[in-house]
Amino acid sequence: MAFPKKVKIREVGPREGMQIEKASIATEDKIRLVDLLSECNFPVIEVTSFVSPKWVPEMADAELVAAGFKRHPGTEYQCVYLNSKGIERAQATGKFDLEGVISITASETFSRKNTNRSIEETFEEMDRRISVLEHYNVPISTLTVMTAFGCNYEGDSDLKHVVKLIDRAIKKANDNGIDPEYILLGDTVGWANPVSVENLVGQVQDRWPNKKINLHLHDTRGMGLVNAFVGLKMGVDYFDTSVGGLGGCPFGGFKGAAGNIATEDMVHMCHELGIETGIDLERLLEVTREAEKILGRELPGKVSKGKTLSSYRRNFNI
Amino acid sequence: MAFPKKVKIREVGPREGMQIEKASIATEDKIRLVDLLSECNFPVIEVTSFVSPKWVPEMADAELVAAGFKRHPGTEYQCVYLNSKGIERAQATGKFDLEGVISITASETFSRKNTNRSIEETFEEMDRRISVLEHYNVPISTLTVMTAFGCNYEGDSDLKHVVKLIDRAIKKANDNGIDPEYILLGDTVGWANPVSVENLVGQVQDRWPNKKINLHLHDTRGMGLVNAFVGLKMGVDYFDTSVGGLGGCPFGGFKGAAGNIATEDMVHMCHELGIETGIDLERLLEVTREAEKILGRELPGKVSKGKTLSSYRRNFNI
Repeated sequence: MAFPKKVKIREVGPREGMQIEKASIATEDKIRLVDLLSECNFPVIEVTSFVSPKWVPEMADAELVAAGFKRHPGTEYQCVYLNSKGIERAQATGKFDLEGVISITASETFSRKNTNRSIEETFEEMDRRISVLEHYNVPISTLTVMTAFGCNYEGDSDLKHVVKLIDRAIKKANDNGIDPEYILLGDTVGWANPVSVENLVGQVQDRWPNKKINLHLHDTRGMGLVNAFVGLKMGVDYFDTSVGGLGGCPFGGFKGAAGNIATEDMVHMCHELGIETGIDLERLLEVTREAEKILGRELPGKVSKGKTLSSYRRNFNI
Repeated sequence: MAFPKKVKIREVGPREGMQIEKASIATEDKIRLVDLLSECNFPVIEVTSFVSPKWVPEMADAELVAAGFKRHPGTEYQCVYLNSKGIERAQATGKFDLEGVISITASETFSRKNTNRSIEETFEEMDRRISVLEHYNVPISTLTVMTAFGCNYEGDSDLKHVVKLIDRAIKKANDNGIDPEYILLGDTVGWANPVSVENLVGQVQDRWPNKKINLHLHDTRGMGLVNAFVGLKMGVDYFDTSVGGLGGCPFGGFKGAAGNIATEDMVHMCHELGIETGIDLERLLEVTREAEKILGRELPGKVSKGKTLSSYRRNFNI
């Protein structure tokens, strides 16, 4: 098996996890979680969302969280924003390494429900989106593809359709004089399986050999790490994960989003496979337990309960 | 990818799961769980253990469970036994399809702690074991290798050592005129990773091309399904799993760690990959929720919370 030597893990728990959690989390706990995660040496942490508190009330304290957390040298701090207002709010805090993202959604219905725009309208908006990002000097690094593998409204994504959308988006970016380094393939609501990951990643690699892939996977049906493993085998070296697997619905009823793959389980698997992450895994396990205290419930990640294999090996002096 | 067309899933939750659970489960609940599982069309269910109640008090009601459950046509009902007394007890119930197993352990320390015998003593006992099984007309189908990938006392298993042990055990069996059909590779306490699975399964397949492999995996560190996936890709078509991910090994040297891979997640992955199991997955999800009620806690399996993808597809009339 040929794995990358090193992978980049983006911790998205504070943003994506907190957004779906039903419990109302105190601002100071959100800050504390970001600071604890910073101690684990993540290359990237997604901290919060600057979106309308009317739509996402859990993120109404974004400015307070931004003001509170301490920047750790060597970590990039990112956040989500949807429009000029969000960018201005984020930039006003002076705490973020804003990442420029242009985004498309493979499912027409999911696009309308999640962004209030059809796929066609998303493409029509794209020029303006790019000029807004350029206006605010946000470097455009990533083309994000949501529901790249499927969604609960329309089922499995058609591979040709997805590749065509990516092609169109990249052409549009190029027409605007930009060329995103990354294509983020988002399994937004957990429809990917090892074969569909192999097929889509393979197509994207064949067609755009100079672009890098970021896999954003959810563990809705237990295949999250299997899909990540297939990505690793194909050389993918950038993954989004959340501490403890934060973000799943604690009440069993499936509400359209589900937990990301658990950061510590992904990091542990990488280390077992000899792949570097640069992350302090033992510290991360302690942080996972802190996250569980903050959330007031057990999180689904496994390694925080099972311990790392390297912790056993150290005891044998191997 | 070349998967087997069909895989055999052995449900071990009622035996292995119940053995580790801290809650004292009522006999009638144990019986009910076996009966519910029988409705899902498993090819094999491991029901209970006929072992000394002094060592495993959770299994003291083995005879009552055996008397209580209803045999479902098409399902084999197995149980664990360690010696003549266990075989006699199991046979006296008239409810089991006894499987003859000869067993070795790759880790010297685990062998001593779990079976009270060294590896050497296990081999010395083997002739007697075989003659006992033959005396009771129990067909010997399986050579079981415990801690095949590693254990908490001695760390990672050495591949050559494991292959040598298997070789020796098969020779000993052959000397006694028997030739087990299956080699069960047990990741008894969760040390396997995708590479070690590939290596050991590959070696066993190369060396004994006519033998079948049963993978018995635990999900202690979240890699259970990844390891199963690697097995599937290599053509392994027999897996042990437990409903909801129930269980774990009581003698593994740690508490609170994860159990076997969750049956419903494995079955779902197989079905998504186009691999038949013969199991009624939607019924199994209902049974998983019943198992959670019986245990009085949420079980780690994911699909019972996330729903099957095929249930969504049915709604789209695809």
